[in-house]
Amino acid sequence: MPTDAPPSPRTQAERKAQTRRLILDRAAEAFAQDGFAGTSLNDVIAGSGLTKGAFYFHFPSKEELAVAVVDDLRAQWTAAVSLDDGDGTPAPQQAQRLAARVVESYSRNRSLRAIGRLVPDLIAARPDLAPQLQASLFLWIDPIEAVIQRGQREGTIRDDLDAREIAETIFAAFSGVEDYSELASLGSDLVRRSEILMALLLTGMMSPVRTGREDPK
Amino acid sequence: MPTDAPPSPRTQAERKAQTRRLILDRAAEAFAQDGFAGTSLNDVIAGSGLTKGAFYFHFPSKEELAVAVVDDLRAQWTAAVSLDDGDGTPAPQQAQRLAARVVESYSRNRSLRAIGRLVPDLIAARPDLAPQLQASLFLWIDPIEAVIQRGQREGTIRDDLDAREIAETIFAAFSGVEDYSELASLGSDLVRRSEILMALLLTGMMSPVRTGREDPK
Repeated sequence: MPTDAPPSPRTQAERKAQTRRLILDRAAEAFAQDGFAGTSLNDVIAGSGLTKGAFYFHFPSKEELAVAVVDDLRAQWTAAVSLDDGDGTPAPQQAQRLAARVVESYSRNRSLRAIGRLVPDLIAARPDLAPQLQASLFLWIDPIEAVIQRGQREGTIRDDLDAREIAETIFAAFSGVEDYSELASLGSDLVRRSEILMALLLTGMMSPVRTGREDPK
Repeated sequence: MPTDAPPSPRTQAERKAQTRRLILDRAAEAFAQDGFAGTSLNDVIAGSGLTKGAFYFHFPSKEELAVAVVDDLRAQWTAAVSLDDGDGTPAPQQAQRLAARVVESYSRNRSLRAIGRLVPDLIAARPDLAPQLQASLFLWIDPIEAVIQRGQREGTIRDDLDAREIAETIFAAFSGVEDYSELASLGSDLVRRSEILMALLLTGMMSPVRTGREDPK
């Protein structure tokens, strides 16, 4: 046994958490690869090495599994982003650092890209889940909003902007760029594309509003 | 018969084109509603009122139908956008007008929102179609790039930007905002959200680059 193998979990609660972790990782990979409708629950169960009975104890249906995957990926993302409390750097630079960190987690954990398609597919399949999924989505926005508010307090970001609306716009635009990069290059140009997006958005957030009605210089 | 009913097509080519139009509209609605995997080809055939034989004459498979829907929606979008040649207004204002027109076509033709999910789902189902779908996607970018290049020539848009990269970023960011609006409000807040995005991006494209390292005023 390699020396870096994790120690066997001792308690039932630890074993249960480890099984749940294994299922969520496998399921996220499957959803990322094949979409919600294209993922076979039987394949996920087979891939987990569990019996059907043991599996259904954790997740009674594909919908509940998918909701848990969305919540889990969101928690991973929030944790990665929240590690950075700014430590005195101006908010715009912190925002660039956060964006770079998000891009890095996308490269490290390709399952994160499942989110963009999983949420709309889930809502199409189970419209009753929409409020719960929307609430989960809104939690992704909170860390971005916090950075913008700090920038407004320190005077680096225009204070005529609604921090929440701008945070939602950044999140949405980033999701679109991530999808585009996936289509254009299987994600290999995401670093470059997200840098371009962040540079445009940050300059837009830091500069006086321009509408095109000014005289060109 | 109501007086505004279209005249019956006279030639076989006209009838064929009318049938194709009917199928594409029905299929776009179905893909927008249920996604690629969730759409039943039999339901689309039944909804078209054609026999299976007649349907397969036009579209031999669900994949070929979906590719045709993507191409058709792109053609509709390009036509809507290309109507506006700028007629002397500065490029940034024309860009805002184009964005408003795109948002309006999204509201009028809800099937346009099928595109964002249809293309990745199709590529997942049929990786061999990826090059063809990418080529189609790139055509969406051309009208945006043309406006940016005009702005750079007239001096309203920073000439240190790569027009193609910026056009792709705008397209991708807009797609993300459209998806987000769909999740947050079934698209009812898309006008507001796209205005915020365009204001940020345009200000970013028209202003000297800012990185957050300047002294706050």
